[in-house]
Amino acid sequence: MPDLPHSVSRYVFFISDRTGITAEMLGNSLLTQFDAVTFKRETIPYVDTPEKLAAAVERVNAISANGGQRPIVVSSLVDEDLSKQVRQANALVLDFFHRFIAPIEQEIGVESNHAAGRSHGISNSHEYFARIEAVNFTLAHDDGASTKELERAQVILVGVSRCGKTPTSLYLALQFGIRCANFPLTPDDFERGRLPESIMPFKQKLYGLTIAPDRLQSIRNERRPNSNYSDMKNCLWETASAEQMMQRYGIMSFDTTVKSIEEIATTILMKANLVRHVY
Amino acid sequence: MPDLPHSVSRYVFFISDRTGITAEMLGNSLLTQFDAVTFKRETIPYVDTPEKLAAAVERVNAISANGGQRPIVVSSLVDEDLSKQVRQANALVLDFFHRFIAPIEQEIGVESNHAAGRSHGISNSHEYFARIEAVNFTLAHDDGASTKELERAQVILVGVSRCGKTPTSLYLALQFGIRCANFPLTPDDFERGRLPESIMPFKQKLYGLTIAPDRLQSIRNERRPNSNYSDMKNCLWETASAEQMMQRYGIMSFDTTVKSIEEIATTILMKANLVRHVY
Repeated sequence: MPDLPHSVSRYVFFISDRTGITAEMLGNSLLTQFDAVTFKRETIPYVDTPEKLAAAVERVNAISANGGQRPIVVSSLVDEDLSKQVRQANALVLDFFHRFIAPIEQEIGVESNHAAGRSHGISNSHEYFARIEAVNFTLAHDDGASTKELERAQVILVGVSRCGKTPTSLYLALQFGIRCANFPLTPDDFERGRLPESIMPFKQKLYGLTIAPDRLQSIRNERRPNSNYSDMKNCLWETASAEQMMQRYGIMSFDTTVKSIEEIATTILMKANLVRHVY
Repeated sequence: MPDLPHSVSRYVFFISDRTGITAEMLGNSLLTQFDAVTFKRETIPYVDTPEKLAAAVERVNAISANGGQRPIVVSSLVDEDLSKQVRQANALVLDFFHRFIAPIEQEIGVESNHAAGRSHGISNSHEYFARIEAVNFTLAHDDGASTKELERAQVILVGVSRCGKTPTSLYLALQFGIRCANFPLTPDDFERGRLPESIMPFKQKLYGLTIAPDRLQSIRNERRPNSNYSDMKNCLWETASAEQMMQRYGIMSFDTTVKSIEEIATTILMKANLVRHVY
């Protein structure tokens, strides 16, 4: 039986003593390097006792035992005994604490805590407040909802409706604690040929998101099919007008067409030289 | 000169050919295991040419050359030549693609793409729409703003004002594509002793967030100092009343007091058995 690349399919388990988000991120960015393979993913979070881990390992081993191929396990287990236990699973186990903690200990001459539950700045009250404040600010200033306190915004995203302003703003707030407002550029603005008055005083803080007209058309069509809003001619006009306006005012801009929310957000963080409040 | 643990301080560079978010997450979860050490962090994203990498490595090497201790470099570089180049820096280099790609290749018998830019589901249009739709739904149903289409919610978070409903809802939407509504439980509801009428039909979808009164007091005090809203007696009453109400209606609940947004969100994902639309 030929084992053609496109027929390859593997189970992947993310096993973590905490949320599993780090294991997922690490694992997913490794798996994207294997286009030809279909992965079936499952996350098992909060595995913090030998009993819970035994149950997780049993599920992993059951896949191998049922005649399937060995699963891949991406694990993030701080406790050394749990780490040892997971590595006995009948699977390819990639345990990143096991791989990386020892070299850091050697390098800096300090022993690690070997204690779970330290990720994601739980105890860091300053970061918590910064994050919550940023989320509140961003929500209050979504889609031009409020022009109050725009001077407190670290960045103001502008662009046509559905170019990705809202999710990008929220991501900047949640991930980096950035106070991010966003403002739509609308047909009214294009006809007047001027930026909305309320954001004029903050030109230095504006950052433009652009998008290819066909992508915009497809996104808008999901929302309001067969409307003028999602009409291709209108999308062409709006995207061209928005780009002209950004050029005229010297607004830095970034094409979001084939980008993920993470990529748009980190690019703005870097290019607009924003100070992040959360690391 | 004694090298006391509390005086240890190290530079950490996150170097990535893409956003750097995965390298940061991995690195940060490793670094949280070293409580006694102060780390100075810097992310250098979009390092995708030998020239950009040479500039980054130069900055790393400058730290060592200036009499400092070797920095730690957490890198995520898909290209093999770039990976080789970064490992020549005068630093402890933890290159996770280098460490983990080869074992996966061996295990599944398929070569990796060795191509950057595949992370975060850029090309996955289905996931993109699911995510955007979830964000839109969640925004429209934040803080009880709309009772329309609540039947489309996958989960409805309830709890007192400032217990973390909004950031948790947004995180669930952005990270997992979950359509999450949230509804405040207010003094009016407690006096009536009943859940708000509009969410009564959706009792099975409710999930309660609880919080310790002193933590609530401190959060509310940041927002409205010296008000009845942030008064300790009021916070005690509201938190107790909310917990009673959750018990009376059999609403599953989760204490958010010492939890990060990531932890609250992943716990709800697991306990409420939600189907995620983004992996």
